[in-house]
Amino acid sequence: MKTPKANNLKKTFSSLPLKWYYDEKQFQKELNKIWSHNWVYVCHESSLIDNLSYKTITISKQSILILKDKEGSFSAYLNTCKHRGSIILDNLQGKLKSNVLVCPYHQWSYNASDGSLLKTSSKPNDDFDKSKYGLKKIQLKIWNGLIFINLSSKKSFSVKKVFQYFDKTISKLDISKFELGFTWTKEVKCNWKIYWENYSECLHCPNIHPELSKLVPLYQRRLVDVKDVENWKILKKNSDPRFQGGLRKGADTWSSDGSSQGHYIKNLQEEIHTKGQIYISSWPSMFLGVYGDHIRVVRILPLLNDKIQLTAEWLFQNETLRDPKYDIKNVTDFGILVMKQDADACELNQKGVYNYNNEKGVLMPEEYIIKDFQDWLRRSIKLN
Amino acid sequence: MKTPKANNLKKTFSSLPLKWYYDEKQFQKELNKIWSHNWVYVCHESSLIDNLSYKTITISKQSILILKDKEGSFSAYLNTCKHRGSIILDNLQGKLKSNVLVCPYHQWSYNASDGSLLKTSSKPNDDFDKSKYGLKKIQLKIWNGLIFINLSSKKSFSVKKVFQYFDKTISKLDISKFELGFTWTKEVKCNWKIYWENYSECLHCPNIHPELSKLVPLYQRRLVDVKDVENWKILKKNSDPRFQGGLRKGADTWSSDGSSQGHYIKNLQEEIHTKGQIYISSWPSMFLGVYGDHIRVVRILPLLNDKIQLTAEWLFQNETLRDPKYDIKNVTDFGILVMKQDADACELNQKGVYNYNNEKGVLMPEEYIIKDFQDWLRRSIKLN
Amino acid sequence: MKTPKANNLKKTFSSLPLKWYYDEKQFQKELNKIWSHNWVYVCHESSLIDNLSYKTITISKQSILILKDKEGSFSAYLNTCKHRGSIILDNLQGKLKSNVLVCPYHQWSYNASDGSLLKTSSKPNDDFDKSKYGLKKIQLKIWNGLIFINLSSKKSFSVKKVFQYFDKTISKLDISKFELGFTWTKEVKCNWKIYWENYSECLHCPNIHPELSKLVPLYQRRLVDVKDVENWKILKKNSDPRFQGGLRKGADTWSSDGSSQGHYIKNLQEEIHTKGQIYISSWPSMFLGVYGDHIRVVRILPLLNDKIQLTAEWLFQNETLRDPKYDIKNVTDFGILVMKQDADACELNQKGVYNYNNEKGVLMPEEYIIKDFQDWLRRSIKLN
Repeated sequence: MKTPKANNLKKTFSSLPLKWYYDEKQFQKELNKIWSHNWVYVCHESSLIDNLSYKTITISKQSILILKDKEGSFSAYLNTCKHRGSIILDNLQGKLKSNVLVCPYHQWSYNASDGSLLKTSSKPNDDFDKSKYGLKKIQLKIWNGLIFINLSSKKSFSVKKVFQYFDKTISKLDISKFELGFTWTKEVKCNWKIYWENYSECLHCPNIHPELSKLVPLYQRRLVDVKDVENWKILKKNSDPRFQGGLRKGADTWSSDGSSQGHYIKNLQEEIHTKGQIYISSWPSMFLGVYGDHIRVVRILPLLNDKIQLTAEWLFQNETLRDPKYDIKNVTDFGILVMKQDADACELNQKGVYNYNNEKGVLMPEEYIIKDFQDWLRRSIKLN
Repeated sequence: MKTPKANNLKKTFSSLPLKWYYDEKQFQKELNKIWSHNWVYVCHESSLIDNLSYKTITISKQSILILKDKEGSFSAYLNTCKHRGSIILDNLQGKLKSNVLVCPYHQWSYNASDGSLLKTSSKPNDDFDKSKYGLKKIQLKIWNGLIFINLSSKKSFSVKKVFQYFDKTISKLDISKFELGFTWTKEVKCNWKIYWENYSECLHCPNIHPELSKLVPLYQRRLVDVKDVENWKILKKNSDPRFQGGLRKGADTWSSDGSSQGHYIKNLQEEIHTKGQIYISSWPSMFLGVYGDHIRVVRILPLLNDKIQLTAEWLFQNETLRDPKYDIKNVTDFGILVMKQDADACELNQKGVYNYNNEKGVLMPEEYIIKDFQDWLRRSIKLN
Repeated sequence: MKTPKANNLKKTFSSLPLKWYYDEKQFQKELNKIWSHNWVYVCHESSLIDNLSYKTITISKQSILILKDKEGSFSAYLNTCKHRGSIILDNLQGKLKSNVLVCPYHQWSYNASDGSLLKTSSKPNDDFDKSKYGLKKIQLKIWNGLIFINLSSKKSFSVKKVFQYFDKTISKLDISKFELGFTWTKEVKCNWKIYWENYSECLHCPNIHPELSKLVPLYQRRLVDVKDVENWKILKKNSDPRFQGGLRKGADTWSSDGSSQGHYIKNLQEEIHTKGQIYISSWPSMFLGVYGDHIRVVRILPLLNDKIQLTAEWLFQNETLRDPKYDIKNVTDFGILVMKQDADACELNQKGVYNYNNEKGVLMPEEYIIKDFQDWLRRSIKLN
């Protein structure tokens, strides 16, 4: 479901050992080598609209705190007091009373803007250098309204590195101007890589997503791009929408009835009309889809070797959200339907991977994005 | 509860280290060395009576698919799609619509008879050799109506190796002609070896199984065989049924009231009358008991280092099942009572094994079958 | 909350690696090196008042049986039958029918007084030397009415070694004369060390324990001892009770309303009045507080790397328990309130410790007891 690079779609490749999808040691390695060195998506800026609002996320059990300070600047910290390790904020989201983070255990207080330690609750003493006990700062970068963090201090942010498949038409869009309309979350019993592999191909679409495949006729051919076969230029002359891309006749967006209720994303109306949807993705934690009248951002966080937390944000232009006639459920119900179908498929996949031999799967030519994902994974494990 | 080889019942032996009953590394070793190299019982043929019916079993988390094809032949496969590892059939049992196994994820289809890959859902391409992507076949052998599988491809099936204690009188019986009357399943919180050790001695009978010990008077002496003491020939002259073997006076079978409701297993009526019951067993996964009017087969599968799945099948002659006056509950209730008592005992045993020293138990002379079991276990771990 | 040695309260120290509070390998090491070599508290003698009464405790999953025999002598055993490892007694407490321990599995019977094997249920045989199969005896020591066990057979009991902070005024008290009035237990989701560290400082008192800090004004200064600052002698001349120690004006004991309902612990009335409370503690498993009219003993047992079992006993002079006007809830409600507050704080602490870097906390000067605790922990791991 991405706009891929040209590909001749002729080769198959060996997939990862099935053991990598459940082995605890492999999971720990990926936490250290992948999740601790890549940019991890947190949320859209409009999820933290008020100054002093915050969110926490956990990568496996490690908690990270992301906040907007009193002047509207964003920061991220390890959600761990420098004193004896207490969690500082124990909710998924909330709002600070002031620009000070106070540990609930011993009231050590930190400047929310830079994490510096303001005050301990101990008596003054000669030995203690406060400047050494600021909260562990975590890199944060906002790109186009999308907030990312990086547990490594050495990784710079570049669009080229952070987004694997980046449809440039998306540059016409100021995503930061969009606003959060709805959030949905779900735990899925699968390894995080299984979710990504599911996302990266449409071979499963006709059977797993019957409604979606009606909306996007190309998906009935199990393809993510009209160019994904050798003779695509000839085929595209066929008036059948399965060869042209885009949504079925009469449909404007990914919604239950296909209607966008008179709302269209400006600047990109023509491109979306042609393509049906535009995707960008950022391994290992997020992908974003632009549809006729909204954007959907999906965040993936690993909880256990066989469990993830899935979170979706629906973003809208503010005039859409303010239109009393616009029914947001037309869009969110459809997205949830598709995501539940994917979650079920991922859980089926997970159930089959356990084996005491060294079984491996195989990647078909249409799964060239999975091939890229696995190559990146292997590289990252070696590199970091 | 088996017909053992002659034994002088004089020696005691050191049992396994108690740690082996809960240690995760030991459990993984046993999955690899024992469960992956021995014949594992699935079910009686009559559990898969219709063509195209199937069952799945899991050895720890590894799922295996056993089916009867359109022409009535049986096959077993790793329940894992060769594509990206999805489970193929996600139910404990069911019926195929055709002789084709279709993966629910991407609709790869396989010939149910031989596992060969029939079709993928990908575009044709030069590179892909379908013949290399059949389902991983697993050895299957039906002996006398009993279906076994073996995860290793190198192990042959021989009655001598598969059944540790094999009462030859059972050869008079065509078990394949029997029919499934009832199935019962239960998870027991104990290591799989603890269940086997419980099965292999009757020292626990009087206290754990008061009802059974009334039915089988010999069990009141905590023995499984009348020959299990030095002077058994003299003792057997005693008219007391505790020294003669067989069921209590007036009882014909293992049932709540001892009655067999006028039904008797042909060919073996005399032997069963003398012995009370005839057992055969097959480590690590099954034992089978023949009683006056029925057979009970018990399957043991390991789930975790401290949990098993227990499944019992009751088999009957078909005239018994068709007799409207025959009350099957008379037999199944009694079997369930005894198995629940054993399950409770096994859970007590499990609770006591945890220790940080190198504690070991001791095997008493009457536990010569456990001794054999442990010797076999140690040998198998070294050998495989 | 102890009476510490003099301390200049000037230095800070690096705390343990946060990983030590959740890592499974570290937990196993501590079970082997700490919990298997130190005296572990069981209960007050009056918890086992009748002859033939018993208790079981588990250190992680290892079960230990402590009993009072028919003549009133105490013994402890590994709660594991020497035969094949069954648990002998499967309740937290109870009463034996006779001075014999009978395994519920095979009825091996043991002398409750010395653990010697009395009888097996096997036939007599030449090979079996009963004297080698007594229950594994565990060292037991009663000090002043407090029952301790030690899994190691090589450790002697000395007040100096067993109690880290021992207020000598407590020697005036015959704790063995006290009687159990109430017991309370709770599982807390934290590593056992986190609970000890919480106990060992009062920096958290004002915020976590508002009611307690009103009762003990010194705690408002986040100190456990009036001497815990350099100029304490001068400060103590201040009539403000925050500088003098002891309870708030008008309060006599740790209770909801501060009243001791006319009951006072003899011999120590003056000392308690001055100090407010007197503590002794015994790593890794117990601390004991003496208050105006009662004693509270808290036992800590590790269940998992992130879970403990907490048990509190309230002890009273027997005239107090027999006074129909004395309301025990005044005391127990207050203790439970404080312990629940600590449990919540410990769970917050646990949630923050997970990290994939090598983060460590820092100990403030007021946490000199934690420093001692951690030094002892590191020493014990090396030593044992």
